[in-house]
Amino acid sequence: MADLINSTGFLHGGDYNPDQWLKHPEILAQDYALMDQAHINTVTVGVFSWALLEPTEGSYNFAWLDYVFEKMNERHGHVILATPSGARPHWLSQTYPEVNRVDDHGQRHTHGFRHNHCYSSPVYREKVRQIDTALAKRYGNNPALIMWHISNEFSGACYCDLCQANWRSWLQRKYQTLAALNDAWCLSVWSGLYSDWSQVLPPSPLGETKVHGMDLDWKRFVTDMTIDFYGAEVAAVKAVTPELPCTTNFMAEASPQEGFTPLIGLDYAKFARHVDVVSWDSYPAWHNEHESIAETAMQTAYIHDQYWSLKQQPFLVMESTPSFVNWAQYNKPKQPGMHLLSSLQQIAHGSDSTLYFQIRQAWGNSEKYHGAVIGHDGSADNRVFQEVAQYGGQLEKLAAIKGATKKVRVAIVFDWDSNWALNRGGGFGRPTRLGLKTLQKHYAIFWQQDIACDIVPSTADLTRYDLVIAPMLYLMRPATMTKLQAYVAQGGTLVSSYFTGMVDEYDRVNLGGLPAPLRELFGIETRELDTLLPHEHYHVQYDQQTYATHDYDEVITATTATVLGTYQDNFYQGTPAVTVQATGAGYAYYLGARLDTEFLTEFYAPIIAKLKLANDFVTTPSEVVSCQTRYKNGQAYHFLMNFSTTPQTVELQRPSRNLLTDEAVGRTITLPKFGTAVLQA
Amino acid sequence: MADLINSTGFLHGGDYNPDQWLKHPEILAQDYALMDQAHINTVTVGVFSWALLEPTEGSYNFAWLDYVFEKMNERHGHVILATPSGARPHWLSQTYPEVNRVDDHGQRHTHGFRHNHCYSSPVYREKVRQIDTALAKRYGNNPALIMWHISNEFSGACYCDLCQANWRSWLQRKYQTLAALNDAWCLSVWSGLYSDWSQVLPPSPLGETKVHGMDLDWKRFVTDMTIDFYGAEVAAVKAVTPELPCTTNFMAEASPQEGFTPLIGLDYAKFARHVDVVSWDSYPAWHNEHESIAETAMQTAYIHDQYWSLKQQPFLVMESTPSFVNWAQYNKPKQPGMHLLSSLQQIAHGSDSTLYFQIRQAWGNSEKYHGAVIGHDGSADNRVFQEVAQYGGQLEKLAAIKGATKKVRVAIVFDWDSNWALNRGGGFGRPTRLGLKTLQKHYAIFWQQDIACDIVPSTADLTRYDLVIAPMLYLMRPATMTKLQAYVAQGGTLVSSYFTGMVDEYDRVNLGGLPAPLRELFGIETRELDTLLPHEHYHVQYDQQTYATHDYDEVITATTATVLGTYQDNFYQGTPAVTVQATGAGYAYYLGARLDTEFLTEFYAPIIAKLKLANDFVTTPSEVVSCQTRYKNGQAYHFLMNFSTTPQTVELQRPSRNLLTDEAVGRTITLPKFGTAVLQA
Amino acid sequence: MADLINSTGFLHGGDYNPDQWLKHPEILAQDYALMDQAHINTVTVGVFSWALLEPTEGSYNFAWLDYVFEKMNERHGHVILATPSGARPHWLSQTYPEVNRVDDHGQRHTHGFRHNHCYSSPVYREKVRQIDTALAKRYGNNPALIMWHISNEFSGACYCDLCQANWRSWLQRKYQTLAALNDAWCLSVWSGLYSDWSQVLPPSPLGETKVHGMDLDWKRFVTDMTIDFYGAEVAAVKAVTPELPCTTNFMAEASPQEGFTPLIGLDYAKFARHVDVVSWDSYPAWHNEHESIAETAMQTAYIHDQYWSLKQQPFLVMESTPSFVNWAQYNKPKQPGMHLLSSLQQIAHGSDSTLYFQIRQAWGNSEKYHGAVIGHDGSADNRVFQEVAQYGGQLEKLAAIKGATKKVRVAIVFDWDSNWALNRGGGFGRPTRLGLKTLQKHYAIFWQQDIACDIVPSTADLTRYDLVIAPMLYLMRPATMTKLQAYVAQGGTLVSSYFTGMVDEYDRVNLGGLPAPLRELFGIETRELDTLLPHEHYHVQYDQQTYATHDYDEVITATTATVLGTYQDNFYQGTPAVTVQATGAGYAYYLGARLDTEFLTEFYAPIIAKLKLANDFVTTPSEVVSCQTRYKNGQAYHFLMNFSTTPQTVELQRPSRNLLTDEAVGRTITLPKFGTAVLQA
Ligand SMILES: [Zn+2]
Ligand SMILES: [Zn+2]
Ligand SMILES: [Zn+2]
Repeated sequence: MADLINSTGFLHGGDYNPDQWLKHPEILAQDYALMDQAHINTVTVGVFSWALLEPTEGSYNFAWLDYVFEKMNERHGHVILATPSGARPHWLSQTYPEVNRVDDHGQRHTHGFRHNHCYSSPVYREKVRQIDTALAKRYGNNPALIMWHISNEFSGACYCDLCQANWRSWLQRKYQTLAALNDAWCLSVWSGLYSDWSQVLPPSPLGETKVHGMDLDWKRFVTDMTIDFYGAEVAAVKAVTPELPCTTNFMAEASPQEGFTPLIGLDYAKFARHVDVVSWDSYPAWHNEHESIAETAMQTAYIHDQYWSLKQQPFLVMESTPSFVNWAQYNKPKQPGMHLLSSLQQIAHGSDSTLYFQIRQAWGNSEKYHGAVIGHDGSADNRVFQEVAQYGGQLEKLAAIKGATKKVRVAIVFDWDSNWALNRGGGFGRPTRLGLKTLQKHYAIFWQQDIACDIVPSTADLTRYDLVIAPMLYLMRPATMTKLQAYVAQGGTLVSSYFTGMVDEYDRVNLGGLPAPLRELFGIETRELDTLLPHEHYHVQYDQQTYATHDYDEVITATTATVLGTYQDNFYQGTPAVTVQATGAGYAYYLGARLDTEFLTEFYAPIIAKLKLANDFVTTPSEVVSCQTRYKNGQAYHFLMNFSTTPQTVELQRPSRNLLTDEAVGRTITLPKFGTAVLQA
Repeated sequence: MADLINSTGFLHGGDYNPDQWLKHPEILAQDYALMDQAHINTVTVGVFSWALLEPTEGSYNFAWLDYVFEKMNERHGHVILATPSGARPHWLSQTYPEVNRVDDHGQRHTHGFRHNHCYSSPVYREKVRQIDTALAKRYGNNPALIMWHISNEFSGACYCDLCQANWRSWLQRKYQTLAALNDAWCLSVWSGLYSDWSQVLPPSPLGETKVHGMDLDWKRFVTDMTIDFYGAEVAAVKAVTPELPCTTNFMAEASPQEGFTPLIGLDYAKFARHVDVVSWDSYPAWHNEHESIAETAMQTAYIHDQYWSLKQQPFLVMESTPSFVNWAQYNKPKQPGMHLLSSLQQIAHGSDSTLYFQIRQAWGNSEKYHGAVIGHDGSADNRVFQEVAQYGGQLEKLAAIKGATKKVRVAIVFDWDSNWALNRGGGFGRPTRLGLKTLQKHYAIFWQQDIACDIVPSTADLTRYDLVIAPMLYLMRPATMTKLQAYVAQGGTLVSSYFTGMVDEYDRVNLGGLPAPLRELFGIETRELDTLLPHEHYHVQYDQQTYATHDYDEVITATTATVLGTYQDNFYQGTPAVTVQATGAGYAYYLGARLDTEFLTEFYAPIIAKLKLANDFVTTPSEVVSCQTRYKNGQAYHFLMNFSTTPQTVELQRPSRNLLTDEAVGRTITLPKFGTAVLQA
Repeated sequence: MADLINSTGFLHGGDYNPDQWLKHPEILAQDYALMDQAHINTVTVGVFSWALLEPTEGSYNFAWLDYVFEKMNERHGHVILATPSGARPHWLSQTYPEVNRVDDHGQRHTHGFRHNHCYSSPVYREKVRQIDTALAKRYGNNPALIMWHISNEFSGACYCDLCQANWRSWLQRKYQTLAALNDAWCLSVWSGLYSDWSQVLPPSPLGETKVHGMDLDWKRFVTDMTIDFYGAEVAAVKAVTPELPCTTNFMAEASPQEGFTPLIGLDYAKFARHVDVVSWDSYPAWHNEHESIAETAMQTAYIHDQYWSLKQQPFLVMESTPSFVNWAQYNKPKQPGMHLLSSLQQIAHGSDSTLYFQIRQAWGNSEKYHGAVIGHDGSADNRVFQEVAQYGGQLEKLAAIKGATKKVRVAIVFDWDSNWALNRGGGFGRPTRLGLKTLQKHYAIFWQQDIACDIVPSTADLTRYDLVIAPMLYLMRPATMTKLQAYVAQGGTLVSSYFTGMVDEYDRVNLGGLPAPLRELFGIETRELDTLLPHEHYHVQYDQQTYATHDYDEVITATTATVLGTYQDNFYQGTPAVTVQATGAGYAYYLGARLDTEFLTEFYAPIIAKLKLANDFVTTPSEVVSCQTRYKNGQAYHFLMNFSTTPQTVELQRPSRNLLTDEAVGRTITLPKFGTAVLQA
């Protein structure tokens, strides 16, 4: 990684759009002066500059960009150069209307907005290749250039004839015969059997919306098409600059039900194999009314950890806001101190950068009220600017940590396609699927105790972990079952739950109940899954305490498993709710019911103790102070972060040095409201 | 009826889709063994089998279906054979795109989903005729075949050019001249006068959405088109099998406002004249959080009684679920005992069958989590299977009751077109029209007292009833007014209310206030209708008690009527709210205000007493135990059902014999939670 | 004005649609008899009569309209004649489909509904010109005709190719060069630069929805197109009847967030310059559940006052309901007395008419349950009719007041385009923009104290006012800033707030913080604007009291201003929240935070005292009794209105005469529930 990103310290800076100010040289000059004051060393340029870079087809205008490189080189700064395919010029949409997307109602869109080109269009791919090549040739050898930022925030899909043809080709490659497709999607239901490949259309509200297997494959196809388009751009720039790393900025999303989670629409585990460095745009909603600051921090930490896990190496935060966003219902600025806290959290979890959208706030148009380092007042005498500058200074003190790695012994398993299938199927409680929320509830137990977690796909190497948490792994391939068996047989500890192994990779139900490998592994049989109504709760007795169940009670029979918890009511009163089966040195736990944090805390306590997972630096972890650790050259760097509004005293195992203050720290440290420390010990 | 359905006992079974398992002969073999264990005697086949029956145009594949008939004949079972028009094959949509529906935005849909063909398309009708004829020729003489199941769950509409032409023809037949149409729809409003028939389009969000008369006629047209399409299919099969009865499965629907009600979209009173046997798909939401189990039971009973009333003969429950559905927000399985209770309720109210969707749970695709007799575990060692089998055994004990009739002295009047008009008009409280909910509130008074009710259209023969309840009969033809007058004059008791007789059959307001025949009948004049806000309530004093009014207070003047209840407040304080007028031996009651159950109970008590309507078997009816009675060959069969979770003791007028246990029953019987008994007395 | 409308007293009457009853001469005859009984002197005819007036292209049918004129002349009544362009005949849409609107999804609508023609279509304009000319020629000299009612309730937009071409022409005239347009809309954002005018499309969900400047200009364009269409109709009728005044009926709207407000979609300040008389359709929701009657009255008063202010002359209420509307969720009739109260309020605020929709209730179709003077009973023995008749009699007693003017010393500033921009931008709290609600909260302080207010655009002459209230004037042109400076310098008192002067006329942020003229005027600098969450409140100390803040706390620095109020908490504790700066005899107040009525009452009290704004007739104003005054020929006419359900006693400064009762009134008067008095003093 140190090789991949050519920087001696953390990247600090972000999206810079001088192209919005070309008629205002006094503003451009002020930009660089203020960037210097703010300890900014990196700018991302060109994300939305195509219309300026190529004002008419085939004629280029690079002068303004040359100037950016010149200024960044002057100050030994870095440039992350974007390919501009995220927003094409008007002339391109006008000359080649086929580059505009067709929506799922079959309607061709007109030019507007962004991130809405057809991924299949040969002419679009060619025009993108030309501008990418031109950029690579002009700036490929520029010393400031450290990385390619391919396009921007890939998402969505196109339903045009070309994309439909690609969809059919993709299916033909996957299934070979129409008979195989008819079987995989169970098309004898509702008279859906295809008799010719040409009959296969994409899912559409005007046509087919009900075939689960089709929906699942369509999502896989969209991921593959997106990667394919990304790959074409990478090929264009690597043809000129084979050594420069490429990335594209991943996203997260938020919903009232699931909370703040990785983007659900694209399989990033698959996509990550194609990027050199994972990067993402991080916009948690600090200071909201529906959760505590620590809860927001926990969810954000979860995403950082998942994106670390994608390549098991440092990632970049490609965008974040110095103050507020502009697209929420309530766009609250970060309170004083929150910027330092939330930015340091990025580094603590494995980011090698804090980058912002954006350096200077836009004058007008759609994002004019999105926060920026330099506000509309254009002044350094501005609370936001000053906190960014203060943070920039701190980052410089931490330069030695850049590229540091992590040591993780706990894995949580998440598969995008399993989650897609889980959410797609009818039955049970639709609003209460909550696959991601459930994973985060497990994660929170460890985050609160300062125990690092990875979040990995089921295809990952699990043998490196002492504990694997895989609840609600709804879609499961036989290989995964075998792998889990082997993992436990070799001494691993596994935690699973209701909604596990229910369907195959085509979203067909695994017939005969819980699949045999899982029956053996957990020593149970599953009987039926009771769906609880929102206000309906039953109870489980576990270790002499009673816990309320939510949403799902699975009725199970213990064949060889040991029963740890028992249902207390309903028609399954007295039957097993929580079981464990030992296999050699390994243990396979099964949670039949959805149980809340109070239970999970008690449940994981003996496992954490037995596996000696407890944090070895913080003596008494707190639910509102997080400790995350990075390692480099034999040194441990402990990041302490107070996600509360009151001072918190933390007891430590051994003395250390606070790199932010350059002061020695003894066996306790008190962090003020939103306070941080980076302790080398 | 005994002749119509060739079965010596109740039909037990349901939709069977072996076509989903043709590559799994071991599953097919297991199916029949398990069906035998579950006392299943009837399968409905072919509902969605067109793509398999006719894999390419004109070539048929009947082998798998032959096998079903063979196996059912082996066990002297029955087959209900569906025509497959509910879901056409892909090749048909592809070869003849005009068979796909056009929606009300003018957009032609592509293939997908189901129940979405154009009803007008000649080619679709011809292709359907061909496959129907082929099925009839092959299986028409098969001894197992007892009935045709025409298409499936008819609903919806098409707006294509062919359907538009039919719409205009339908209007031309009805109105003869454009001037008549302009008058009927009051088109001088908003400059809407047609000057040529070609200007008449269907209602559409892109065009006309405001003409009440058009909307009303469009709904009538859709019913007629649906019946016409159904009729074409009946003609095809009756050409080969003139003796076999035909049905199509009717539906019910649920809304937060109205509750569980008959389907609103099609005039089943009209449709029922065209079917030999009424059948319906019954999916009440047992165990929900917004009402008690008894309330769910009451609403379900209402629909059973309405569908009995459509032909005044036993109906069939064509579909129901052994456990849960898959399309609700929360798909809760039936609790132990609920399956026996809810299934027996069908028989109690006049069904001659309990049929399920479906025999074996689908492997994949849209309905894979809909409950079934045989679950994904494929096992008889399954709570759902065992309850189905237990119920199948019970049904065999009740075989003698099949075909039994009912004795009903109370009618509730419901007209589909009146309800359409009521809900369509602006004014008053839009969310508080609640025509169906209001009827069910009246019905509930009788259901709770075990007094049987019919629900009949205004065209029905009312002279057979001692009490006719017709509140909110908003759209009223002169013939109905005359009929109600005659009914009361001949000694009948009639209950009416606000929102009665307000419009004519074109949804034009009856000018001059309450129409003269109703003014005479009720002895009142109506002055104005006050609309109450949701939290606004006034009061009526009735028989020394005070009752709160809801939603509507009609201000009336009693001309010749006797005032029974008086408003207590508002500007109409002291004016009549409830009146009665005697005409000969008859009585015509008028309820000016919407009054709740507490009032209705008091209001109906003297009427029930006077007309001696009380149940003659149960001494003290309970709100949670229902008694329904069927009669055959001079025998009365009383079905007792405990719709509560606690044991209930019922006192009876005379000793009887419980056919389910073959035990004698004295003057009391105690039913456990969800308990049932069928008492021959 | 007295010249403009040729009437010796107030207009009383309204929309009359005899064209719906031509086959019922007995009804037509009854109409005039009942109108006479109801003291109706004016009918508005022909609004939706095109299909009848011109049944086939080019052939006219005026006989029925001749009869209306004849009957109105018989009784020396007035006719307001509508041009029928609001709803075209079917044949026109059929022959010339281009007259139908295209929606923002590019879909051409079919005939239906109303108010939905293309404003650009040359053929539509020509057909309208022909019918308008024919009407003008036939009735222009008729003594009954007093005014043209051009079309009806203009609103909405068309996106057809013709309208798109007009949009581009409009932009070319405004911006001259594409470069200027690119700059104005900040199109370098998201690669949006145009390279050819033909690339400019309207905003559309299928294309561009994010460009703030485009959205703002589109709304301006829609206003201009609407005025242009209106102007073409005016030209047609004025070519024949140059002396007759023209109007078109403006509208109001209601939302749960903003309450009852002027229509937001069209810039009526601009439109008003083109009408001879302002008229509007007033439909407040009396007797609702979310506010008191006084609050409904206050909002309605606000709109009356704004529409008065548009031309600073008497306006007309063109439509109102005698009882209820038909399009709300709950259409509650006015309670007894409310009709007299709410109608008199129109006159009190400057209307010279009370006109209804409509004289006779429609027989059928969309508006059949909209209230009318003559109901479906066709009877004078009807509460609604009697109250209308009583009110008509009262109006005749007030005839001398017709044309009277108002004396207003307080202005509230409202610009349509500023409000559009305010609501469009992202950032801050989207549901809490509430620009109109905020103005009404300021207005309410004055309304409750019986102090008259104008609501004027920023282009108005402000020097006539002693107090100018301009909070949240978000979009501000330099000329406005200069004007406000001059206003204060000349001794005016100005009240402003957060969200002021933030953007220029292109919705581009004013760079450098608060613009210099405003910094000087208020003596402050703005630092940042904290957005509060819905349940988040901080506090301001002002004059020894503490007040909660809502939604917005602006952090400001007082440079030369005097600090009147100070934040009590959060990171801006102790900083200024309310300031004032004196400039000569003038004062410029700035409210940094959104503060509620309790604060505003205290805040305005010393200003009202200092400027001697208090009502000079009512001694102790009440929150539920309103006093509004009109002046004519040296006489003052005080309208007292009790907007509560209990009697209210009002103390008066001097004796007077109640014109409604022709009685002398001393120093007090007691108004019953909903009671009114018109006191000449
Ligand atoms: Zn495409
Ligand atoms: Zn059709
Ligand atoms: Zn147009």
